[in-house]
Amino acid sequence: MHDLIENGTLWTLKEVGTDSEQIRQNETLFSLSNGHIGTRGSLEERHRTQSYSHSGSTLMNGFYDTEPITYGEWAYGYATHHQTTIPIPDAKKMDLSLGDERFDLETGKVDHHSRTLDLKKGLLTRTFSWENSKQQSINVTIERFVSYDFPEILAQRITIESEADELPVQLTFELDELKDMGKEESAEDDPDPRKKEQAERRFDSRPLSTDSGRMIHISTHASDLHAVIYDHVVSQPELVSLERVENKVTASFQTDKSAPVVIDRFTAYSHKYSNEEDTGSHAENLKEIMSEVEMLGYDEVKDRHLSFMDDFWKVSDIKLEGDQALQIGLRFNLFHLHQAAGRDGHTNMSAKGLTGEGYEGHYFWDTEMYMFPFFLYTQPEIAKSLLMYRHSILPQARERARTMAIENGALFAWRTINGEEASPYYPAGTAQIHINADIAHAVYDYGKVSEDEAFMFNEGLDILVETARFWLEWGHFDDERNGAFVLNDVTGPDEYTAIVNNNFYTNLMAKKNLSYAIEYVQKALKQETDKLDELHVTEDELENWKQAESRMFLPYDEEKELTMQDDSFFHKKVWDFEHTPKDNYPLLLNYHPLTIYKHQVCKQADTVLAEFLFFDDFSMDQLIRDYDYYEKVTTHDSSLSRSVFGMMASQIDKHKKAYDYFMDTALMDISDLQSNTKDGVHAANMGGTWMSIVQGFAGMRFNDGTLYFTPHCPKEWSRLSFKVQVKDRLIQVSLTPSSTEYTLLEGEPITIVENGEQIQL
Amino acid sequence: MHDLIENGTLWTLKEVGTDSEQIRQNETLFSLSNGHIGTRGSLEERHRTQSYSHSGSTLMNGFYDTEPITYGEWAYGYATHHQTTIPIPDAKKMDLSLGDERFDLETGKVDHHSRTLDLKKGLLTRTFSWENSKQQSINVTIERFVSYDFPEILAQRITIESEADELPVQLTFELDELKDMGKEESAEDDPDPRKKEQAERRFDSRPLSTDSGRMIHISTHASDLHAVIYDHVVSQPELVSLERVENKVTASFQTDKSAPVVIDRFTAYSHKYSNEEDTGSHAENLKEIMSEVEMLGYDEVKDRHLSFMDDFWKVSDIKLEGDQALQIGLRFNLFHLHQAAGRDGHTNMSAKGLTGEGYEGHYFWDTEMYMFPFFLYTQPEIAKSLLMYRHSILPQARERARTMAIENGALFAWRTINGEEASPYYPAGTAQIHINADIAHAVYDYGKVSEDEAFMFNEGLDILVETARFWLEWGHFDDERNGAFVLNDVTGPDEYTAIVNNNFYTNLMAKKNLSYAIEYVQKALKQETDKLDELHVTEDELENWKQAESRMFLPYDEEKELTMQDDSFFHKKVWDFEHTPKDNYPLLLNYHPLTIYKHQVCKQADTVLAEFLFFDDFSMDQLIRDYDYYEKVTTHDSSLSRSVFGMMASQIDKHKKAYDYFMDTALMDISDLQSNTKDGVHAANMGGTWMSIVQGFAGMRFNDGTLYFTPHCPKEWSRLSFKVQVKDRLIQVSLTPSSTEYTLLEGEPITIVENGEQIQL
Repeated sequence: MHDLIENGTLWTLKEVGTDSEQIRQNETLFSLSNGHIGTRGSLEERHRTQSYSHSGSTLMNGFYDTEPITYGEWAYGYATHHQTTIPIPDAKKMDLSLGDERFDLETGKVDHHSRTLDLKKGLLTRTFSWENSKQQSINVTIERFVSYDFPEILAQRITIESEADELPVQLTFELDELKDMGKEESAEDDPDPRKKEQAERRFDSRPLSTDSGRMIHISTHASDLHAVIYDHVVSQPELVSLERVENKVTASFQTDKSAPVVIDRFTAYSHKYSNEEDTGSHAENLKEIMSEVEMLGYDEVKDRHLSFMDDFWKVSDIKLEGDQALQIGLRFNLFHLHQAAGRDGHTNMSAKGLTGEGYEGHYFWDTEMYMFPFFLYTQPEIAKSLLMYRHSILPQARERARTMAIENGALFAWRTINGEEASPYYPAGTAQIHINADIAHAVYDYGKVSEDEAFMFNEGLDILVETARFWLEWGHFDDERNGAFVLNDVTGPDEYTAIVNNNFYTNLMAKKNLSYAIEYVQKALKQETDKLDELHVTEDELENWKQAESRMFLPYDEEKELTMQDDSFFHKKVWDFEHTPKDNYPLLLNYHPLTIYKHQVCKQADTVLAEFLFFDDFSMDQLIRDYDYYEKVTTHDSSLSRSVFGMMASQIDKHKKAYDYFMDTALMDISDLQSNTKDGVHAANMGGTWMSIVQGFAGMRFNDGTLYFTPHCPKEWSRLSFKVQVKDRLIQVSLTPSSTEYTLLEGEPITIVENGEQIQL
Repeated sequence: MHDLIENGTLWTLKEVGTDSEQIRQNETLFSLSNGHIGTRGSLEERHRTQSYSHSGSTLMNGFYDTEPITYGEWAYGYATHHQTTIPIPDAKKMDLSLGDERFDLETGKVDHHSRTLDLKKGLLTRTFSWENSKQQSINVTIERFVSYDFPEILAQRITIESEADELPVQLTFELDELKDMGKEESAEDDPDPRKKEQAERRFDSRPLSTDSGRMIHISTHASDLHAVIYDHVVSQPELVSLERVENKVTASFQTDKSAPVVIDRFTAYSHKYSNEEDTGSHAENLKEIMSEVEMLGYDEVKDRHLSFMDDFWKVSDIKLEGDQALQIGLRFNLFHLHQAAGRDGHTNMSAKGLTGEGYEGHYFWDTEMYMFPFFLYTQPEIAKSLLMYRHSILPQARERARTMAIENGALFAWRTINGEEASPYYPAGTAQIHINADIAHAVYDYGKVSEDEAFMFNEGLDILVETARFWLEWGHFDDERNGAFVLNDVTGPDEYTAIVNNNFYTNLMAKKNLSYAIEYVQKALKQETDKLDELHVTEDELENWKQAESRMFLPYDEEKELTMQDDSFFHKKVWDFEHTPKDNYPLLLNYHPLTIYKHQVCKQADTVLAEFLFFDDFSMDQLIRDYDYYEKVTTHDSSLSRSVFGMMASQIDKHKKAYDYFMDTALMDISDLQSNTKDGVHAANMGGTWMSIVQGFAGMRFNDGTLYFTPHCPKEWSRLSFKVQVKDRLIQVSLTPSSTEYTLLEGEPITIVENGEQIQL
């Protein structure tokens, strides 16, 4: 039983005690977010040392600063600027004093210290009792939530009780503007390319006038982004005197054993904006929100948040019987996945959500290929807003394609926030052009599952057409291969094999991308929409797509009867796993890229991912042969790997493997499997756990408008159930090792297929 | 006729007038060097603007500073530090005053201004007359040379004449310590990766006590290299009063129409050293050299320099009749080639020699493959010292191999000064592992041509064995190719095609490298030297080399009957040359690396170079087919390309092409063909011109101890003659379009082969 999980609980993670290591570690796990703002699970009080905190930052989705990328040697078309999501003023900080003693864990006599993350409610609650050197003691409860109902609002309630009267208590609230911010590790101390510590405060701030509380305007140093933050403290005036001195609000009162003292703190974070002149209206807007929030009061604001959480769990929960820890682990993953998603059409999901600064807060293909399916089948409106973000950066993607000497079409940035390429290492960045097809794939699936024609024939078509165009120019018809369409000098998902020709995953996804574009352009032609004129799609172009689609080269080794990851993969020497010390993993931190590239060794699922996505296009024998081969040469150094191998294992009847991979996946962050959870959760892997249940164990696939299931519930569990939304139906699926049950909860009757047999719901 | 070339001259380049553009341009062409120190052909006087100078720097071979390389994204095994040859205190600067007016070209009334570079003598002479505003005028001559006889010495003689008596003249001499050094262009202004402007002064200096003149100690900021510089002015005391104030020596005198006033300046630059405590001994050494120089006097020091130059030209000159400009161009190239070579066994030849700061003063494969042959066949002792440098960096090369996970053997740095890899872009750096074979090839040729067994069975064997070992570990026997030995993820000479499998040039050179090692190890076994025990060469290892050598994979397209540059070259799309604007060359400055890599387009000779080096291994038909194919897809964006295509053209009877390529090659710097001569001469291309004459037009090849010739003297010339030293013979070769003449000038009789027929000399 994991130490955060108590017997009997199914919805909570509870940390007991004051062990600094544990508190540091849980800072990530206890992060709260609503897709707009996120704040890490750090403690409220100041400590002399860093020992209780890795980084207590508060982040805003899409609020980043830029700095020029320095290269040892420049080349044309390199990404020009880093984009880095930056910590913004943090509203969790407060000082608590009893008499003339200030509270902290390093010096205070503290009892019954615990923090509880309630996944069902989306609440983080901290309680403890503190006795000062005069044997005066108080009990403290601090509750924190980030509102889904008011996306701008971080709410905190502090409750102080005592068995003694008239103990003088003081609470000082501050908006931490990070003036004294220093980085814990410098880039030189830890050159791990997967993370980037903040070197310094990256914004300027100035106070804005308010009748009450404290309001500031912040603007980034280089990217010229702006935001307004409004920090407001409320309490019972008859008991507590609130005094504002400079940046601090001090609440003073005396304890009363008959009644606890309650102080509420609301902090509103505006949405980001890029025109300083808009500051006034954003400030006004926050004032209105704040007055509404104050008028409603903490309890009502909290109730609305709870009911929002209820609605979320109603459609999104996965119930698993037979393994309590795993049940909680699953919910923990869904909870964070839900927290991570931008919902405004201008933001997306960073690889770490808003739980940490790893990967600089960039958006990757992770969104479409690992996180998107969860939203697509449970909250399609969020799925749509994620695609709207991609549509919003089409201009930058077109520009990027031009830089790559592609005259028509668009190339989405491999890693970005603002749409511009931010990867300083093109062999594992720009070369991963498969991101174009990944996005097109998500667009297509969204169209099929949601039947949102309005989107598909506008934004959807823009994306499908511009990505299809890209393939025609990047690749060519290779006379050396009887005119097959080839894609050279690309990098597939497996970043341990870079700059190769005809990566199977990339080529297959490009083929699908072309077929998606063809299908929707033909539909649009029938509809006589003028969208096609707007996009200048001609008959000739359509014909070229058809040629490329039908003649797409898919590398296959006839002799071995194996799918080839790329043209030359089998010509590489197999990595000497036997003599590779355990400490040398992940390989990317211990071997030169060329050393890795010239071997058969995979960081993650590549061919196996392609085959899982289009499972029905392959024979079972083929799937098994390829799986057996590629599993042997895959290190799973990427967190995107295990879930895919697990899902495929389940579908090719390797049930033991399926279960083992899944258990690694599901508990990756709670057990810090990759030892870097402190930098943030692995959001894609969390999406992978949902996929593992629904598309792995339940074997759900959606082809040509029909839902297919090939369920295999691990014998380790007694029951597994979840819900999916498809074509306006809400369907509940329950699995046991021996049976399956499908229930239509909402919507018109529908026919599904289980193991080849039709079932009418 | 080029404007530096006067009718009738065969040995001089003469610049007439004061056009600032021309003076700037010629700063590189008029550089003087002796392989130890080099000083650019800048003017002596100060000017208000930069317009007369690009960079007047003085450089010392191997005297560099380091700075950490910054990467946008770090990866294991990346080169850690830039190494940059830095300008050191310049002893050319002097102020000339007549009355109270200071001389410069911007304000002065100057007549008959000319500068002459005498290639035969290695002298740069400047003359002009200057009239000040009082109509007082003087005639000035400044002669400059860098002594070969005293490698530490830069010597200058200033002669002042006048038709008037008692004009007050002042000359102030200064050792320019670059205190106010600023960079002309910042890296951002000009991101061209091929050059790197100096941002600031990179050394500290302190005065050392001397009885006369000025002596300073300089030490680099980061690399901890040291040198001593001793600047000394000599004149006729009865005529000239020398006064020393702080750092300046001022010579004052009055003109005397009956006799010119002569002032000599000697500046001694010690060799670099890395232990500050050695400063004393280096200072003493310079004092001794200086007193000898002073004792001998300018004329004698100059005479010794001239006789050294005589000896050089006696063996190294190429006489060409029928094209005066070309004759001078050839001599200009040989002159600079000779100037560029380090001769102390601890330094090598930078891509720009000591004529400029382009390529940071790094040593590349250019040395062995383009410059080495000239020295090998004319001055073997210099060829040897160049190889001794490579031997001296074997420890760093072994270390580099370990970093690349190679447990045995060595990998020489692609670009370096101190032996450590300094290339910040590994796809066109570390991936060019062919440099190992290039060096081994030079070692082997040196052994054959010089018969220097002492070297071959010591330093030579070290290099052959360590490089051979490297190949065994980098490559492997590929079961997919019936056990052929393959080399994956390498970059060949053509940097427009990177990270490929089985680059033909690399594989062929590696095969030769192995055969060289096998041959000399077997010889050593017979000799029962204990060198082999020292190197731990076992029978098994030897057997592995034999296997790899005999089974080396050489990519060939049976259907096309073409040699494949690499496994996938023919699968790339041919670059659209037709629609590429002229301004978009060189491509590397206008297209993203991936755009270039995914096309069939070559920066330079690659397969054609391999075939030229081992001409007799291929059928004439094959050579012609390959040449015709690769010429069509080669841009010659590298200065290493044209000479190779020209040589091959001559040998496959494409005589028009051979001539045209040669004319581009031979006059590349004088005519600034690549528009970057201001950054320094293209030393490799200068080596290419020698090779073009000797190995191209004369078709000289040295195989198995025999000299072969297949001469084709262009009809444009009436006569061509040169000398080569082989196996202790000095042989003169004279070609006319219709005849050839071979003369044994020194040594035992020898048999050579011309067009298959033996000739006894």
